[in-house]
Amino acid sequence: MHIDVLTLFPEMITGVFNSSILKKAHEKERYSYNLVNIRDYTENKHKKVDDYPYGGGAGMVLTPQPVFDAVDAITQKNATVPRVILMCPQGETFTQKKAEELAKEEHLIFICGHYEGFDERIRDHLITDEISIGDYVLTGGELGAMVVVDSVVRLIPDVLGNEESAPKDSFSTGFLEHPHYTRPAEFRGFKVPDVLLSGDHARIEAWRKKESLRRTYERRKDLLEMQTLSDEELKLLNEIKE
Amino acid sequence: MHIDVLTLFPEMITGVFNSSILKKAHEKERYSYNLVNIRDYTENKHKKVDDYPYGGGAGMVLTPQPVFDAVDAITQKNATVPRVILMCPQGETFTQKKAEELAKEEHLIFICGHYEGFDERIRDHLITDEISIGDYVLTGGELGAMVVVDSVVRLIPDVLGNEESAPKDSFSTGFLEHPHYTRPAEFRGFKVPDVLLSGDHARIEAWRKKESLRRTYERRKDLLEMQTLSDEELKLLNEIKE
Repeated sequence: MHIDVLTLFPEMITGVFNSSILKKAHEKERYSYNLVNIRDYTENKHKKVDDYPYGGGAGMVLTPQPVFDAVDAITQKNATVPRVILMCPQGETFTQKKAEELAKEEHLIFICGHYEGFDERIRDHLITDEISIGDYVLTGGELGAMVVVDSVVRLIPDVLGNEESAPKDSFSTGFLEHPHYTRPAEFRGFKVPDVLLSGDHARIEAWRKKESLRRTYERRKDLLEMQTLSDEELKLLNEIKE
Repeated sequence: MHIDVLTLFPEMITGVFNSSILKKAHEKERYSYNLVNIRDYTENKHKKVDDYPYGGGAGMVLTPQPVFDAVDAITQKNATVPRVILMCPQGETFTQKKAEELAKEEHLIFICGHYEGFDERIRDHLITDEISIGDYVLTGGELGAMVVVDSVVRLIPDVLGNEESAPKDSFSTGFLEHPHYTRPAEFRGFKVPDVLLSGDHARIEAWRKKESLRRTYERRKDLLEMQTLSDEELKLLNEIKE
């Protein structure tokens, strides 16, 4: 997979690409990336990339020219047909399902707006997807793009090693994860549940399943309503409700 | 406001603090921050901070000792009572309302887990809030913490200048934003709507209000259902539905 990120603040996100799983995945050549400074493509002689909004109002608006030209430059040198993703609050709310869909693509281009907004012609004529990472206001699209990149790249085959592996991650299974405990067995008087020290793997599995269900029931009933529960899960859920 | 971020990957997020609004707000002394490497607090002689999960299973679990000690070190040198926020998929889903609540605090501490998870005693005995930025799986809590920090710091008084000002941002008003356009009036054959060039401010305001409603109706009916519409808004909405 190749990822291009179009931004006015490349220095904001280089550290994210150079850390943790994104760094490892890059070293393993599981994906490549390029940070494109939108400003490098402006035809404005003062290197401006924004202008006042037509119709008046506060805030500056990203002009269409540098963004269209930056995307053109990328698509002209690649044989792939990229997904061109605009990060914006009006977009489709990002989910694990969307991450799984994007992880199958060969080429993703992210456009990060900043400040007040961007010219609507970018939305109407340049992009294939609009994504919002949640219902809150951010200063720009950079953090959103990195959230999507992180969640997508970790799904590329062979990116996660066994230590980081996550088949039981929250949202992959449809349930929130059960609690984890590690050494010491007692810390500041707080003890690890006996069952986890029992060595009885069937009991441990049953406890984890029940705690996962309990947590989902207590915190996110909406996730439970979205799926069909097995007979065993329904039985556990009834025990939890009592 | 003071913000502490406890992480195993400080280099992942220094660039975010050193860019854009977070940088400007720091220069204006509207907030201060400190990145705390959890590893600096481990008592393990090999500097390990994680260990195998009790009960078996894949993945490593962050041990309680370095996290408790790092938080203790911070709270002992500050007179404030901090909110101690754990970034995790099981947390309360982050919203603009939560950002507004946190923006009133004096001191925020963020704990970023990484890889498989963290010892449950951190959740049970150390924190005041659990936040998830959305229903997707990330490699660690760092990006989530930066999303929360960005959305909170921009709400601190005097952080946003007029150019970045955002009273009409999506989610602040309850509606998605109307489209923005800037120069040129025609780009690659795509034109700016006539009304925005008319100079008629009442018509422009009416157009913006209607387009904001239209976008919210088409994309996020759930946001409309969460609020009480004025008579004017109801009338516009009926026109849109026809």
